[in-house]
Parts: sequence; structure tokens; C-alpha cells
Amino acid sequence: MVIPENPFAHYTPRPLEIVDTTLREGQQTSLLHDYGKYFFPPEDKQEILQALILYGVKFVELFAPVVSPREAEDFEVLKAARDALIPQRGYTFLLAHVRAHPADVEAAIQAGFDGLNMYMGTSPQSRTYNHGKALDEIARRARSLLEDLRRNHPHLILRFSGEDAFRTPLDDLYRVYDEVAPLVDRLGMPDTVGVATPSQVSERVGALHARYPRTALETHFHNDRGFALLNALRAVQAGAQYVNTTVLGIGERSGITSLTALLFNLFVDGCYDHLEGYHLRASYPLNVLLADKLKTLVPFQEPVSLTNRTHTAGVHQGAVLRHASVYEAHPLELFGVSERDTLLGPLSGWNMIHYFLREIHYFDLDEATARRITRRFKAVVYEQTAEHSPAEVLLRLAEEEFNLRRRVETPPSQAPAIIQHWQVDAHPHTPSITVP
Amino acid sequence: MVIPENPFAHYTPRPLEIVDTTLREGQQTSLLHDYGKYFFPPEDKQEILQALILYGVKFVELFAPVVSPREAEDFEVLKAARDALIPQRGYTFLLAHVRAHPADVEAAIQAGFDGLNMYMGTSPQSRTYNHGKALDEIARRARSLLEDLRRNHPHLILRFSGEDAFRTPLDDLYRVYDEVAPLVDRLGMPDTVGVATPSQVSERVGALHARYPRTALETHFHNDRGFALLNALRAVQAGAQYVNTTVLGIGERSGITSLTALLFNLFVDGCYDHLEGYHLRASYPLNVLLADKLKTLVPFQEPVSLTNRTHTAGVHQGAVLRHASVYEAHPLELFGVSERDTLLGPLSGWNMIHYFLREIHYFDLDEATARRITRRFKAVVYEQTAEHSPAEVLLRLAEEEFNLRRRVETPPSQAPAIIQHWQVDAHPHTPSITVP
Repeated sequence: MVIPENPFAHYTPRPLEIVDTTLREGQQTSLLHDYGKYFFPPEDKQEILQALILYGVKFVELFAPVVSPREAEDFEVLKAARDALIPQRGYTFLLAHVRAHPADVEAAIQAGFDGLNMYMGTSPQSRTYNHGKALDEIARRARSLLEDLRRNHPHLILRFSGEDAFRTPLDDLYRVYDEVAPLVDRLGMPDTVGVATPSQVSERVGALHARYPRTALETHFHNDRGFALLNALRAVQAGAQYVNTTVLGIGERSGITSLTALLFNLFVDGCYDHLEGYHLRASYPLNVLLADKLKTLVPFQEPVSLTNRTHTAGVHQGAVLRHASVYEAHPLELFGVSERDTLLGPLSGWNMIHYFLREIHYFDLDEATARRITRRFKAVVYEQTAEHSPAEVLLRLAEEEFNLRRRVETPPSQAPAIIQHWQVDAHPHTPSITVP
Repeated sequence: MVIPENPFAHYTPRPLEIVDTTLREGQQTSLLHDYGKYFFPPEDKQEILQALILYGVKFVELFAPVVSPREAEDFEVLKAARDALIPQRGYTFLLAHVRAHPADVEAAIQAGFDGLNMYMGTSPQSRTYNHGKALDEIARRARSLLEDLRRNHPHLILRFSGEDAFRTPLDDLYRVYDEVAPLVDRLGMPDTVGVATPSQVSERVGALHARYPRTALETHFHNDRGFALLNALRAVQAGAQYVNTTVLGIGERSGITSLTALLFNLFVDGCYDHLEGYHLRASYPLNVLLADKLKTLVPFQEPVSLTNRTHTAGVHQGAVLRHASVYEAHPLELFGVSERDTLLGPLSGWNMIHYFLREIHYFDLDEATARRITRRFKAVVYEQTAEHSPAEVLLRLAEEEFNLRRRVETPPSQAPAIIQHWQVDAHPHTPSITVP
């Protein structure tokens, strides 16, 4: 098989390169088991890859072909999808996540990957209980494997990572990285077990950046402590150019850094140069796409979500009806959250109920009536939600008990049910810059 | 109505006092709408309150009675449940979340709350678009209301919060807090719209701590940027003694700081003095209780979760079978996560399959056979999971295709299905301290 020249030689990396690993690390989420799905079928993978490419992601990590024959076949499908979407080829690079074993590496090269995200455990835990190799042997093996690769496949993108790098003493990491740094495009800094704190990230990424100034750094943060997002932001500040993410932050255990949460926070912090080439308005659709594939909702903790424009408390709803900025601080419309929700329920106040009946359902009523209906609604809604949504309870009250009539008849199919949407108006805090 | 003396006068607050607001802020989560539940019925509330009390939480925030007649009635139930659990009374204080309106305040006092978490918007957004009051008027109203309260109800626990405090210029906050600080037990610092960063939290909490050294500070962080956990940790470091949390971090929009995530991280950081009186081993059961009430799973992002001891990738499963510490860094068993899961699925390797068949299902097989079965399993599991779990696929393969026989017959009802549990052994990283 002829290995074609890799167009990475002609690509100038941007200030921030996302290495998205939704289709590798993300497939390790227990959610796929919780929802009885177990894996992403090739159609799903293809759709996710296409969405990532259109979003502006240039590096996508996949399983090595040795993981299973199915993963090997799927790579053919994904490569074809990538090539079909990018006729000029080469602008999104497909990388194999491989152990530093010659056989695994060879299979990935034969399959036609553009590069290798190679790893080997360097922490005392990995060395003692997993592969059992000493540091010198790790350094020697990695160096020899990488020398061969550089000689025989000079255009392959190469990363080497000391797995569990944040439990590896810095001197041990230097011992290995000093050997491999001249041979790779990137050195990885994975926090495999989620122990790193933001200040440790600043310190360690800064130290590696100073020691290997000509080699790009790539980071990968697990969320075991809940720090994966902050750690990635700190890594970018400290000079990491490549950051591993997944859509929604899914992954083994508590997952890793969420792609859209990272870019959203860089935007809020005004780091616009790091957002070059990312299609930010596609952020929320991308999150919805993945949630749909997982058969779940966009998690409520995800910053780029409709949840973050959803208001349930009466005082919030009342204020947001007057001016959204009172309870919304961030320009989420630039990230594709184009609507706003107020959830009609037991906590809604008279102003929301007035708005809902008058503006959405065209009832004729004044504020005093809205206040009276609200008192009745709060008296009965708690008993009736087992069979009816709060909106149904309210509409029945209005028509049957208060004899309210609609000014305009709307067909029931057009009437919004529980959730009421309205268009997001120009946000007072939108910075006056042009976003890619 | 006679207002009994509040035992808070005889209570010495601990270094960290959780003010849990699952039953107030938590009820504002959109998850209650997403799962068609809308509110916590009184039985649920009672169970959650009892769990919080047993966990060691001494301050629980509830809705003010004005929110609805139902919330007012529920308070009677909760107060009775508290009193039944604590015969000597007074060791968990029930606080009403009230607007700084005389009528709201009066209703809460009449209902018999132990204290008031009073708030009024101080940010420019609140003042301009919500209540429309100038700073001087806010300060004057708050001061006069609090003076009356101190005079007429000297034993009431009082907090005053400038709502949206992190969008309020510091001088504006001082303008109001200088007036009220001598009158309250605590000054609140709510990040109502989730704009604060960890460094801003350190700075601002530090500044207030220096200006009001005799008044305790209480913080409340929303998760719109994903920083609610880190911000709370920083606030504790900077001198905040009271922190608002909810179980699982639920709340309006992306929620607030998770109770167990906060305590878990303080433990990992060695801040043992802040954990005085919290029953940490009840952390995971508390999370499961709330997830069950919400009809959902413990979120994968929650640090205190079985997810964080769940392994899906083949290399992780293989290593964890040898020694858990390779892919588990934290002593979660001290937080009640007493089991470990490995999810048998397409990513499992031969060592996991060998373990599953031999140790769990008592089949007689050697490693070479396990490797052959694994190849077949990976060839067929992708096609069969629509009707069967991966474990069912594997057991059929073993019995029907490989003719393996069990050494011991186990009744099918005892055979674990998808998930395989085993007891967590003593963790090599467990610090040798005694935890309350």
C-alpha cells in the first residue's frame, strides 16, 4: 500500500487546535451503557464527524484499528466521509489513539491514518501495576519506535504522551520527553485520572512549554474532581496549543473537557484569537446532535445549552419578561442558542401567567384577572400534574372556570405546550466584534 | 403567635457551614419539567430534609410561604419532620428565602422559620430593569427592615444578600453592606447569573472579609460558565464560612455548586477542618436519593458517583483487574461509593472477558480460550445489542458456540446482568486519618 503524503506538512496550526475525541474517548462513556446503546453505529459516527468538520475542528481522534474489526471498518467509512466533504483533502486530520506497540502502530499506518496519538503510562502506578517497565526502558522503546516512524513515514503527525502525566514526577516526565521531543509534532500532557488542579496545570504546562519551546503541547483533562473545563482554560493560557475535547464532555468516568464549554469560555474571556476558524453558532446544534445520538438531553451543566436560557422561578420569569439581561449574562445566541424558554409551572408568578394567556394563547384578560387565575392555578396545579402538564391545567382553568375567551382562534396543534419560546432579541452585552 | 427563642444563639458555627438549598433553588431546575415531575411532593421533601440533617447539614433554605399555599403547607410538614428527628430541637435551622418586602418577611416569621435569607437586587441590571430602585433607597429600606427585625425578633438568623453581587460594582455593594452589616448574622455574595471567575471570587470574598471582619460571609455560585464548584472552593479559601449548595448541583439554569462535589474536593485538598460534622460516607447515597426523586441518573459529571469507579475501555479494565489505582486516583469509598463497575461491552478486552466468564459466571476456561471468545464477541456484539445486552451475547457465545460448561450452577436470578460489581478493597491512597 502506498502511503500518500500527509498534507499536514502544508498546514499552519492555529493558536488553538481542538483535538476532538468524541468518537474515541467519548465512546468510553458509561452513558452508552446506561441508555442501552453500547456504541455509536457508523451512521452516527459519520454524522458526528461531518458536524465536527463543519464546526472547524481540524484534528479528530479515533480508536486504533486493533480495538475491534468493527472500529477498523468504521475508519474506512469515516475517511471516505471526510474526503467527500473536503474535496481538496487534508484539512481535517484523522488520528489514531495507539499504544506504543509496533503492531498497533503498524495497523494504524496501514489503515491510512494521518497521524498517531501515541501513549504509554509513565506514572509510578502505571509502571508498577500495569506494564511493569522502568523509565529508561519506556524512553528507549518510545525513542526507537519514533525514530523508525520518522524515517519511514516522515509525513505522519506524531504525538507522544506519558499517560497519567500529572501523577508522573516532573523529572520522570523530562527523562522520557527529552528523548522523544525532537521526534514528535506534539507532546501530550494527559491528566488520565483527573487529579490535576488549575494551579498545577499552569505550573506544569508552563514548565514543559519552557523546556520544549519548539514542540507543541497537547492536553487532556479528566473531570473526576470537576475541574476538566478550568484545567483546559488554564492550559491554553499557559501555552498549550492543542486541547482534547469531546462534545458534551462525555468520556470514561466523569468525562473530559466539553468542546463548546471551552470555546464559550474563551469567548467570554475575550480570547478571540483562539477562536479563529470555529463556527461558534453551530455550538448548540452540535450539542443537540450528540445528545440525540445518546438518547438523552444536553446535560444541565453544559454552558452552551437552552437550559442556560430557561427560567422557572417566578421572580426570574417576571424580570426576564421586562429585560432578559436581569437573569441572563452571556451572549449565548452567538453560540446558536436562538431561543429562550420559560417553563410554566408551580413556581410561575402572575406576570408569566398573564403573558402566557394573553400573548401566547390570545386570551382577553387584565392583570387583576391574571392575579386571580394565578391564585387558583397554584391551588390546583400540584394535584393535577400527574395527568396534565401545568400549561394544560392553566388553559382549562382559564376557559372553564374563568370563562375567558380567545381573541383569535388558534388551532390546538399550533399552541405551544409546556414550553413557550420567543426569539432572543439583541443582547445588551454582545461585544461589538465579528465572530467567525 | 408566640415566637420561640431561636437556639441559634447557643450554636457555635463550624469552620464550614453548608446552607443547602435543594428544596428551594433545586426545585427551580428544569429537570423537574423535563421529566414531567414539576415539583417535589411533600413526601420527597421530607425524605430529602431528613437525609440532609443526617448528613450533618445545619442550615436548610426553603421557599418563602408567599410562593404558594402549597409551599406554605409543606413547611409545616418539614418543620415537624425536623423536630421529630431532633428531639432537642434547633440543630438544623430552616431558613426562608425572602425578598426584602415587609409582607414576605412577616409571612415567613409567622410561619415559624428560624431565619431569613433576605435578598434584593443591587446590580445595575436589577436596578434598571427589575425593581427600579436607586442604591440609597435599597440601603435605606434594607436597613429599616433589618432594624425592625432585630428589635422585634432578636433571635432570628438574618442574612442580607445583594442579589447579582458579582455584577454589582464593589463600591455599590459597600454602600449597601456598610448599612446592614451590623444588623445581620451573614452577608451574602450570590453570583446569581454565573459570571464570576475563581480569581474574581478570591479577590472579592477577600475584600469583603477584610471590610466586615465580624460578619460571616455566605456565597452562592451559579454554574453558567461551569465554574460553580471551583468558585465555591475559592470562596472557602478566601474566608467564606457559609456556602450554598444543592444535592447534585441542581438549580435554575445550569444549577449551582454540588454539595458532595464541594466536600469531596475539600477532602482531596486535605482541608479536614472544614469537614467537621459531615457524614461523608452518606455522600453517594444522598446523590442516589435525589437522582431517584428526579427520575434520572446521578449525572456523569458528579465527582461522587459510581460513574467515577466505572471502567469501559479495554485497557482500563485490564489494568483495574490488576490494580485499581492505575485508573482510580481518589478514595471514593470514603464517600459511600462502595462498589466498582466494569461495563462489559464492545470495548472490553480479553482479560475482562476472561474475568467475567471465569470469576462471575464460573465457567472453566483458560486465557487462550478467552482470547478466542473475545475475537468472536467483537465480531458479533455490534449486531446483537438491539435485542440483547453485551453480557447476554457473551454468555450465549460461551455456552452455545464454545460449549463451555460452568463449574458451579448459579440460579439465573443471581447472575449479574450487564454490570459486574465487586467490593472495593482498601485504597492505596486512603489517607490515614479518621473521617467523621
